[in-house]
Amino acid sequence: MSTILAANNSFLETLTGPAQLKHLQLNELTQLSEEIRKEIINNVSRTGGHLASNLGIVEITLGLHYVFNSPKDKILWDVGHQAYAHKMLTGRRESFATLRQYKGLSGFINPTESEHDAFHAGHSSTALSLAVGMALARDHLAQDHKVVAVIGDGGLTGGMALEAINHLGHIQTNVLIVLNDNEMSISQNVGGFSQYMKRIKETFFYKDIKQTLDQIENQLDAFNLRPGLWELISSVKTQAKARFDTPGIVFEKLGINYTGPIDGHDIAAIVHALRQLQGRQKPQILHLITQKGKGYAPAEQDAIKYHGVPAFCLEKIEPVEALKPKAKTYSEVFAEAAIEIGKLEPLLVAITPATAEGSAMVKFGQTFPDRFFDVGICEQHAVTMAAGLAKAGLVPIVSIYSTFLQRAMDQVIHDVAIPNLPVIFGVDRGGLVEDGETHQGVFDIAHLRCIPNFTVLAPKDATELRNMVYTAVRYQRGPVAIRFPRDKAVDGNHGHPLELIDCTKWETIHHGNHIIILAYGAMVDIAKQTCSLLQAKNINPTIINARSCKPLDVVLLRELLNTATNQIVTLEEGCMTGGFGSAVLEFAAQERLNHLQHKQATITLIGVPDRFIEHGSRKILLDINGLSPNDIANFILHLSTQA
Amino acid sequence: MSTILAANNSFLETLTGPAQLKHLQLNELTQLSEEIRKEIINNVSRTGGHLASNLGIVEITLGLHYVFNSPKDKILWDVGHQAYAHKMLTGRRESFATLRQYKGLSGFINPTESEHDAFHAGHSSTALSLAVGMALARDHLAQDHKVVAVIGDGGLTGGMALEAINHLGHIQTNVLIVLNDNEMSISQNVGGFSQYMKRIKETFFYKDIKQTLDQIENQLDAFNLRPGLWELISSVKTQAKARFDTPGIVFEKLGINYTGPIDGHDIAAIVHALRQLQGRQKPQILHLITQKGKGYAPAEQDAIKYHGVPAFCLEKIEPVEALKPKAKTYSEVFAEAAIEIGKLEPLLVAITPATAEGSAMVKFGQTFPDRFFDVGICEQHAVTMAAGLAKAGLVPIVSIYSTFLQRAMDQVIHDVAIPNLPVIFGVDRGGLVEDGETHQGVFDIAHLRCIPNFTVLAPKDATELRNMVYTAVRYQRGPVAIRFPRDKAVDGNHGHPLELIDCTKWETIHHGNHIIILAYGAMVDIAKQTCSLLQAKNINPTIINARSCKPLDVVLLRELLNTATNQIVTLEEGCMTGGFGSAVLEFAAQERLNHLQHKQATITLIGVPDRFIEHGSRKILLDINGLSPNDIANFILHLSTQA
Repeated sequence: MSTILAANNSFLETLTGPAQLKHLQLNELTQLSEEIRKEIINNVSRTGGHLASNLGIVEITLGLHYVFNSPKDKILWDVGHQAYAHKMLTGRRESFATLRQYKGLSGFINPTESEHDAFHAGHSSTALSLAVGMALARDHLAQDHKVVAVIGDGGLTGGMALEAINHLGHIQTNVLIVLNDNEMSISQNVGGFSQYMKRIKETFFYKDIKQTLDQIENQLDAFNLRPGLWELISSVKTQAKARFDTPGIVFEKLGINYTGPIDGHDIAAIVHALRQLQGRQKPQILHLITQKGKGYAPAEQDAIKYHGVPAFCLEKIEPVEALKPKAKTYSEVFAEAAIEIGKLEPLLVAITPATAEGSAMVKFGQTFPDRFFDVGICEQHAVTMAAGLAKAGLVPIVSIYSTFLQRAMDQVIHDVAIPNLPVIFGVDRGGLVEDGETHQGVFDIAHLRCIPNFTVLAPKDATELRNMVYTAVRYQRGPVAIRFPRDKAVDGNHGHPLELIDCTKWETIHHGNHIIILAYGAMVDIAKQTCSLLQAKNINPTIINARSCKPLDVVLLRELLNTATNQIVTLEEGCMTGGFGSAVLEFAAQERLNHLQHKQATITLIGVPDRFIEHGSRKILLDINGLSPNDIANFILHLSTQA
Repeated sequence: MSTILAANNSFLETLTGPAQLKHLQLNELTQLSEEIRKEIINNVSRTGGHLASNLGIVEITLGLHYVFNSPKDKILWDVGHQAYAHKMLTGRRESFATLRQYKGLSGFINPTESEHDAFHAGHSSTALSLAVGMALARDHLAQDHKVVAVIGDGGLTGGMALEAINHLGHIQTNVLIVLNDNEMSISQNVGGFSQYMKRIKETFFYKDIKQTLDQIENQLDAFNLRPGLWELISSVKTQAKARFDTPGIVFEKLGINYTGPIDGHDIAAIVHALRQLQGRQKPQILHLITQKGKGYAPAEQDAIKYHGVPAFCLEKIEPVEALKPKAKTYSEVFAEAAIEIGKLEPLLVAITPATAEGSAMVKFGQTFPDRFFDVGICEQHAVTMAAGLAKAGLVPIVSIYSTFLQRAMDQVIHDVAIPNLPVIFGVDRGGLVEDGETHQGVFDIAHLRCIPNFTVLAPKDATELRNMVYTAVRYQRGPVAIRFPRDKAVDGNHGHPLELIDCTKWETIHHGNHIIILAYGAMVDIAKQTCSLLQAKNINPTIINARSCKPLDVVLLRELLNTATNQIVTLEEGCMTGGFGSAVLEFAAQERLNHLQHKQATITLIGVPDRFIEHGSRKILLDINGLSPNDIANFILHLSTQA
C-alpha cells in the first residue's frame, strides 16, 4: 500500500452522516479533507472512476455540509461526477468498492441512493435551472430552506446555465451558486466567460481604484478644499463602488451578487464565506478557485488524463497510460479516420463540445490546430456552428456523444436537416454505457431516423467505420450520422486503402437459411456470435449487416419480405420504440400495400426495452437486456420451434 | 385607401436590388424607409403576417444593405420573421401579395427564395452560431467578406446565443453582431441580461465618472499639488477608462467590442456606426435601440398584439381584436383549462418560453401572477426549471410549441423522464402549421414516444383537451405530454363539470365494420368526416379515438389485431417515421410472438411523409399530404377493394 494511504482515517471512520460534521472544529475539517482525499485516491485506483474532479472539490463539499443542513437544505451538484466526497459524507462510504459497477454505487448523483442527493445529475449545466425551480417552489410553499447549486466553470459555459443565470438575475429569488472554478470542464475550458474569470483572478490582488482614491483623499487632507470638491470625490467613490468595485462585475450586472475569488482548498475561508452568504436573501455566486487532481501529484499534473480513469496502480508514475486497453476503441478509430481523411481533404474541420478526450479527438486537434474547434459544453452552438461551416463550404465533422446530441436536437433539425447541409455527425457512445441512465445512448436512432434528409449509419467494425467516415466526407449531399458504441472496436486492422462504400446497401455477412438476422452497427458482431451458437443447434441463420437504418436497403428488404417463409429478426443496441426495427416494420407495412395479395415474412424486434437502463459494464447491460449472443440464440431457437 | 398610403413609393418602385441602394443619399434613405414602412403596413393588412417587428427594423435593414455588399457579405437574420424590408430590397417586393400563402412568399428567411438570404431561419437565437461558423469558414478559405448577425434582445436570451458569444469572445474572429434592442422578444422580455441593457440606456446619457474626475482636476488646478498626486489621479482615470468607460462592459468583458447604444431609427447614425465598424477585425456588437411597430400607431401602442396578425382593416382602431376568429383555438382551450384547474389546485404553476401570447397563456399569468413564469426564449431552462418545481412538490405545466420542445429534448429525457417527474407538457402547434418548414410540429410524437415513463396524449376536441389537462394534473405519477394543433378547437362547448378520464383507454367513436380507423388527436375529426364520405360509398368504418400513443390501449388493440379480417388504418398529423402508426406496428409484432399460430389484422399507416413541409394554411397542408377526409376516404376505398 502506498505511503499516501498510511494515515489512519480516524474522523472519516466515525462519521455516519453530515449532521455529525457540525461538531468538528475547523482544523479537524482540514484533517478530514486529507482523509477523504486519500480514500478517494485509494478507491478509484481500485475501481476506476472520476478522479481529478473529485479530488478538487473535497474542501468545498466539506464546507457545504458543515454550513448547510442537507437534506433540508437542497444541494444540487451539477454533472454529478464530482460527488464522491459528498457520497462518503452521506452514508455511502462503505459502498465505494462497488463504484460504477452493476447494482453498485452510481458514479453520479442519484436520489434513489440517498435523500442527500437532491436531484440526479449526469449531464452538465442543469443545476442552476433546477435550483431556480426548487427555490421558486420553496417560496411558493412558504418553506425556509436554502437552495445551493454547485457548478463548475465548464458547466457555466452551457447555454442552459446562462439562461438560468439570466432568469435568476431577473426574478431575484434566493439561490446560492457555488462556482467551482478549476479552469477546465472535462477538457481545457474555452470561452470568453472563462477568460473573463481568469482575468478576475489575475487582477484581484492588484490595488483597486478605490484604494487609489483613498490615497488621493489622504493626500488632499492637507489642503483646505471646498466642500463641493469632497462631495465630487465621494461621488466618484460611490459610483466606482457601484460600477467596478467587484471582480465579478459581469455577474453583478446580470443581477447576481458576487463574492470571491476565494481559495477553494482553504476550508476556513470557504466556511467563512458560506456563513456570510447563508443569511442573504438575493441570488449569490461564490467563486472558488480549485485545482483538479489536488493532492495526487500525477492528477495535478495532468487533470485531463485523470478526469475519468480505469483502475490503476498507485505506485506507477504513468499508471493510466500503462493500463489502458491496447485494442483501439471505436472513438479512436473514428478520430484516426478523421485525421487520415483530413490529410486528403483540406476542407475537413472537426468540432467537439468539450469531449475531445472522451472521443479521442485530441490528436485531430494537434494535427490540425486550425481545423479543430472545441467549443466547450455547448452542444447547441456546436451543431449550428457546424451548419454555418458547411453552408460556407467546409466539410464539418461534429464529434459528439449520443446523449449530448439530445441537447441539440432542434439544431440538428432546424439548422442542418432543413437546409440539407452535409454535416457529418460522429455519434459516439451510441448504445449501452457503464455511466448509467443519463448516458445511455439509446434514443439516437429513433430521434434521428424521423428527420427528413438524414442518412443514419452504424458500422459493423473498425474498417467499416473508417470507410463510412471517408464515404460521408465524399458524399456531401446531406447530413450523415455515423453511430458507434463506447467499446473496443471489432477488427481494428488498418492499412487497407480507404474505400468508398455504398452505405445504403446492406451487406450479407453469412448466407444461411430463412431465419434472417438484420443487425445494425455493433450488433453485427453479436449476430455473428449468435450464428455460431445457432449452428451448434443446427440452425443456420442468414446474417445481414444492415449498416444504414435510413435509408433502408429497400431492394434487399423487399426481396426478404416477399418470401413468406422468411423470419426476419432485427437487432439493435437502441430503444426498440421507434428504432431500426420499427423502420423495417414501417417499410413492410408500406410494401404490403403494393403487394396486397402476397403473404409477407414475419418480423421480430430485438433491442433495448422501454425503460431507463442502470449503470454497469456494456457487456453486463447487453446481457441483462437480452442482447447477449446466448439470449438472442435462445430467442431465435424459441421462434423457430414455434413457427 | 388610408392616408398613410397616399405617398408615391418613388424610390422603392425603382429599386431592383441592394446594389442600387448605394447610389442614394442619406436623406433619400430616410424617405425610402418611410416608403418601405407604408408598404409593409399595407401588405400585412391584406395578407396578415408579422407586423411590429418588421416596422421596427426598417432603418437597420436599409443601413445594412447600404453599407455592406450582400450576397458577398453574409447578413444573417435571427428568427427571420423581421425580414420583410430585407425581402423588399432584395427583389421580392412584387411577391408580397402571396406572403405566407401556399407556394407564395415565405414569412421567414429562406435561401431558396434569394441569394441574399444567407441562411434560413425560423427559430430564435441561431444567428450567432451560424455567424461564427461562416466566419471561421471564411477565414479558413482566406476569403474577405464580412459576416453580420442581426439578433434581437429576445434572441440574445437564448442559451445558444450566449454559447456563441462565449465562443466568439474566445476565438476573436471577425463577426459583427447587430443587436436590435426593442426591449422585447415576442412577449415582454425577461432576464438579467435585458435589465442590464435597460440600465445601459438609462445611464448612458448621465455624466460619467470620467467627467466627474475632470471636474475634480479642474478644481484642483488651483492648488499646488505634489506631482505624485497628479499621477494618482491620472492612474484612476486610466483604470476607469479601461474598466468602466463603456456601457457595454458585460460584452467587453466577454471579449466582444461594444458600440452604442444608438437610435435604431436614425439612419444617418446607423450608417455612420456601421461604416466605423466595417473595417474592424475583432468581434463587434452594435447596440441599436428600436421601437416595435414604429410608424403605425396601433402597433407602437401594443407591439405584442401586433407581433403576428391576421389580415386587418387599416381604418379600424382595434383591427386585430375585431377580426380574430370567434371560435376558440386549442391553445385557448388549454389555457382556460389551466386557469380553471389552477383555481382548484393551488400547487399548479405554468411556465412558458416567451410564447405566452401564442399559446394564450397571458390570461393565466394575469389570473395567477405568482404562479406563472415566462422565462424568455429559454426552452432548456424552462423544462429543467419545471423539473425542479415538480421535484419540490409543485404541479408544473410547461406550455410550449412542438418545435420549440425540440430545443429541450435532452432536458425532457434527463431532467424529467429519468426521475419520472409529473411535469405536464402542453405541446402547442403539434401538427401542420402555416409558418413552414421550421415550425412544422411533426416530430413530437416520434421523439417523445421513445422516452420511457412518458404518457403522450392528444385530444380529439376541446372537451377532451380540458379533461386531459385535469386528469394529468391529478395523475402525478410521471410526465404527461398533451399535444394539440394550431387551429380552432373542435366542439368548444364548455360548462360541463371537469371529468377524470382514463386517457390510456381508447374510445370507440363509431361502431362500423372491419375497416378500423385508429385516429390520434385532431385526426379524430378528420376520421369522422372520412366516415361520412365512406358511408356514402357503402363502407362503414369503425372510428376509434386513439387518444394515447404511449401507452397504447393494449387490451382494445389486442382484440382488434386478433381478428384477421380487420383492416386497421392509423391516422396521425405527425411524421409516419417512428410515430403513432409505428407504435401500433411494434405492438402487433410483439403480439404476434404471443400468438404465433394466429393470423393478424393488417395495418396501414397514414401520416405526414418523410420530407419537410412548406408553408401554407393547415387545411392546404393536410390536403397536399393526403390527410384530407377526401384523400383518406379514397385511400381506404382503394384498400377495401383490393383486400
